[in-house]
Amino acid sequence: MPPRAKLLPSLDQALDACELRDGGVISFHHHLRNGDGVLNAVLDAAARKGLKNLTVAASSLFGVHAPLIGHIEAGVVTGISAAFIGGPLAVALSRGALAEPARLLTHGGRARAIEAGEIRIDVAFVAAPCADPLGNLNGVGGPNACGAMGYPQVDVAHARRVVAVTDHLVAYPACPVEIGQESVDFVVVVPSIGEASGIVSGITRPTSEPAGLAIADLAARVIDASGLLVEGFSFQTGAGGVSLAAAAEVGARMRQRGVTGSFASGGIAGAHVAMLEDGLFRTLLDVQCFDLEAVRSYARDPRHIGMSAARYASPGKRGAVVDQLDAVILGATEVDRAFNVNVTTGSHGVILGGSGGHADTAAGAKLAIVTTRLAAGGHAKLVERVRTVTTPGGTVDVVVTEAGIAVNPLRRELAERLRGAGLPVREMDELIARAAKAAERPTEPRRPGRTVAVVEYRDGTEIDTVPLAP
Amino acid sequence: MPPRAKLLPSLDQALDACELRDGGVISFHHHLRNGDGVLNAVLDAAARKGLKNLTVAASSLFGVHAPLIGHIEAGVVTGISAAFIGGPLAVALSRGALAEPARLLTHGGRARAIEAGEIRIDVAFVAAPCADPLGNLNGVGGPNACGAMGYPQVDVAHARRVVAVTDHLVAYPACPVEIGQESVDFVVVVPSIGEASGIVSGITRPTSEPAGLAIADLAARVIDASGLLVEGFSFQTGAGGVSLAAAAEVGARMRQRGVTGSFASGGIAGAHVAMLEDGLFRTLLDVQCFDLEAVRSYARDPRHIGMSAARYASPGKRGAVVDQLDAVILGATEVDRAFNVNVTTGSHGVILGGSGGHADTAAGAKLAIVTTRLAAGGHAKLVERVRTVTTPGGTVDVVVTEAGIAVNPLRRELAERLRGAGLPVREMDELIARAAKAAERPTEPRRPGRTVAVVEYRDGTEIDTVPLAP
Repeated sequence: MPPRAKLLPSLDQALDACELRDGGVISFHHHLRNGDGVLNAVLDAAARKGLKNLTVAASSLFGVHAPLIGHIEAGVVTGISAAFIGGPLAVALSRGALAEPARLLTHGGRARAIEAGEIRIDVAFVAAPCADPLGNLNGVGGPNACGAMGYPQVDVAHARRVVAVTDHLVAYPACPVEIGQESVDFVVVVPSIGEASGIVSGITRPTSEPAGLAIADLAARVIDASGLLVEGFSFQTGAGGVSLAAAAEVGARMRQRGVTGSFASGGIAGAHVAMLEDGLFRTLLDVQCFDLEAVRSYARDPRHIGMSAARYASPGKRGAVVDQLDAVILGATEVDRAFNVNVTTGSHGVILGGSGGHADTAAGAKLAIVTTRLAAGGHAKLVERVRTVTTPGGTVDVVVTEAGIAVNPLRRELAERLRGAGLPVREMDELIARAAKAAERPTEPRRPGRTVAVVEYRDGTEIDTVPLAP
Repeated sequence: MPPRAKLLPSLDQALDACELRDGGVISFHHHLRNGDGVLNAVLDAAARKGLKNLTVAASSLFGVHAPLIGHIEAGVVTGISAAFIGGPLAVALSRGALAEPARLLTHGGRARAIEAGEIRIDVAFVAAPCADPLGNLNGVGGPNACGAMGYPQVDVAHARRVVAVTDHLVAYPACPVEIGQESVDFVVVVPSIGEASGIVSGITRPTSEPAGLAIADLAARVIDASGLLVEGFSFQTGAGGVSLAAAAEVGARMRQRGVTGSFASGGIAGAHVAMLEDGLFRTLLDVQCFDLEAVRSYARDPRHIGMSAARYASPGKRGAVVDQLDAVILGATEVDRAFNVNVTTGSHGVILGGSGGHADTAAGAKLAIVTTRLAAGGHAKLVERVRTVTTPGGTVDVVVTEAGIAVNPLRRELAERLRGAGLPVREMDELIARAAKAAERPTEPRRPGRTVAVVEYRDGTEIDTVPLAP
C-alpha cells in the first residue's frame, strides 16, 4: 500500500482532511512566541469554513494572537487554555470575552493534562521551521529557525491528527529529525510561519539598571550561601533582565569556586549558552530557545539537549527535569506574606501572563528564589495577599528585593545559613511595610465577579480564579 | 513532592517494584544481539521469584538466549513473540517446547501491534549502554555501546512500566538522551549488560567469494537498469556478505553517475557509514547499528539519524521510512515460483530466523530484490513452494541468482527494462529447474503437525504457520 500523500496545498484542505468539526480542540505551541504566524492562519481558515465552538489549547498566547478576539466574538472559538496569555487577548479575556472561563495551566501541568486525557486534542498544529514532505520536522533549518521544539512534542504524541505547517520544505529526509513522520499526518507549506525576530520578543538582555543589579547580586549570594553551589549544581532562570544578570553572577561564583554544573534548564538564552561554552555547565536542557544565539547553539552543540514539555516539567510519576533542579530564579508581579506568587494578573486584575514554568520549577527546585522590586509602576509588589495565586507559597523558599531577603518560615535552616553568611535577611512583614511605603498608590482590591479564568495548578487542582476585571 | 527514587539495587527488586505478576508480558530489544546479557538475567530473576506463565515479547532472540528453554520447561515462560528467533531456542520451539504457538512478527508489525494494543507490555526492559539515575538513556556511552536504540522506543512509549538496565551509570543528565526519563520508571545497575563484541554476531563483511560477488554485481546492475539510480536515491541492504558487496557495487555506480542518495536505512553497518562519509548519501536512518564502526559514526555524525521501529517500518497510516525506499536488497532461505520468500525456516522445517524487516522493506520499496544462490547446503533455494511464507511474493520484484534474474510477472515493464540493459532475465521455471539440478538432495516436504509458530504479516494477518518439526 503506498503511503497516503501528506502534502496538502492549504490549511483549509488540512482542516477538511483532519475532519475537524464544530466543538473540536486544536492545539498550538509558542516556539515562535510573538512572531508566530500559524495560529492566526489556522483560525482564519477555520472561520472561512464556518467552524464554531472550537477550543484553542495553546502552550502560550502572545500579543500577535490578538486576532483570536475576533474569532471569539464570531463564535469560532469558545474555549481557551494556555500556560501564558499576554497582549490584547489577555485583556479581552479579563473583560469577559469568553462565556466559559479560560484555563490557565503550567507548562508541566499542560503536559500532564494532555497525557492524562484531560485535554483531548483533535488536531495539533506544529509550526515547523523545517519539514520534509513526509513530516519529519526540526527547528534548526529555514528562515524562521526556533531551535528546540519541546512544547509540541507532547501534543503530537496524543493528538488525533497532526498537521505540520512550514515555510521551509526540504528533500526527504529532513535532518535532524526532532518530530518524526510517524507522528505527523499532513504537511502544509505556507509563505511564512511567522517572524523569527519575534522569537526574542519579551526577552531581555541582562539588566544594567542599579536596583536590578543589586537584586541579581543578592540572589547569587543566596545561592552561594545556600550550600548548593557545589559540583553538579543545576540551575534555571527565566529570561528577564534581573534573572539573566543573576545568572551571570552565579556563573562568576561557579568559576571562582571551580564548580562545574550538571545542567541549566528551561527556556535557554545566549547567557546560558555562554555558560555552557565556558565550561560552567556540562549540558543545557532546552525546552525552548529564547534567542537566536540559543538557536545557533542548539543546532551545532550536542551538549545542548532538547527536551519535551513532559520531560521538562510534568508532575507525572516518573519525575521531570525540574525535580532535579538545585536552584531557580523566578520573577513576580506580586508576592504575599505567605510567599504566594502572582504572575497571572496585574494590579488592575487584568491577565498579563501566567505560570509558564514558574509553578513547576518552584515545586521542583531545592531552592526557589523569587526576585522582585519592592514596588513598580507605582504599586507595591510585596503585599498582604496576592490578587491571584499562580505559585503557592509553600514552594517558594526565598524572596529577594533591593531592601533585603525574606526566607520562607518553612526554611528555618536556610534562613540561618543566609544570616550566617552576612546576608540581609528580613522579616516578610518588614519588607511588605517598606513596599507599601514605596508605592505611590494603593492596589485596587480584588472584587468578586464572574470567573473569567481558572488557575489550574500543575497537578490539575484549581488553585485560584480570576474574576471579571473592572 | 520529591521524585520517587528510581535506582534499584537488583532486577529482583525491579520486578517487585513493577508489580510483575504471573501471566505478565515483558519486553526486550536486541541491540546487543548475540551479546545481550539482560534478557537472561531478567528471566533468572523472574524464576527466582517463582513467576509463571510470562510472555516474552522480544524484538529478536538469538543463540545467547538459549537459557529461555529452561525457563519454558519450568513454566516461567509460556508465550513468546519476536521478529526473529535463532539458535537453540528456535530449535526447541520448532520441536514443540511451547504449548501455545510462538508469534513471529516483522519489525514494523511488532511496532504496529504494540501501538494498537495487541501486544500489551507490562514491563519493558531496556538494555542501556549508558544511563543516569533518573533514566535518561543512550547507546553511545559505556563499554557496551550499541549506537542507535530504535527498537525499545516503541516499547517504552506503551509499556505499563519501564526498567532500564545498565552497566554504565553516569551523572545526571546523560548526554545525549535517546530515551528520556519521562519514559523510565526504574534503573538497575548490573555488572554487565552483555558483550558489545556480540553486537556484530551474525553480521559479515562483504563477501569475497566469486559466486556471491557475481550475484552482488548483478543486483547492482538491476538497480542501475531500473531507472531508480537518480538524485535522491534511497537504499537498504541487509548485513549479509552478498548484500554488503552489492552495496559497494551500488556505491560505485552512484559515484560514476554523480548521484547523491537521500538515505540508506535499516540496520546500519560500516559499509553504509563509508557511503555516507563518501558523500554518496545525505543521511543514514538507523534503527540499529550492526557493527562498531556504525556505533562510532552514530555517536559523532549528526547526519547519522536514529529512528524508532515505528518510524522505520510500522504499517500504520502515517507511513514509515520503508515506504520511501527506492531499492532494497534482501536475502532468502527459499524463494518460490510465486516469488514468496522464506527466511523463517530451514530445509528441515526448523525455525532459523524470521522476517525482521524483510517483509516490511519488501512491501515498502519500489524495487525489492532478493538475492540467493540456486542451492546451498545441498538444498535447492529456488523451489516450487516455499516451506514457510515470510514475505509474500506480491511484494518481491526481482530474484537475483548466479544463473540469472527472475522478474515478478507483475512487473512486466521492469523485465523489459532489464532485458533492454542486456541483463540475463530468465523465467522463474528455468531457475527453479536449474536449482533442482544443483541440489544434492531433495528438501523434505512440509508435513502437517501441531502449529508451533504463527507467521504474522506486518498488518497483523496470519500468513503462515510453522508445524512441529520432524
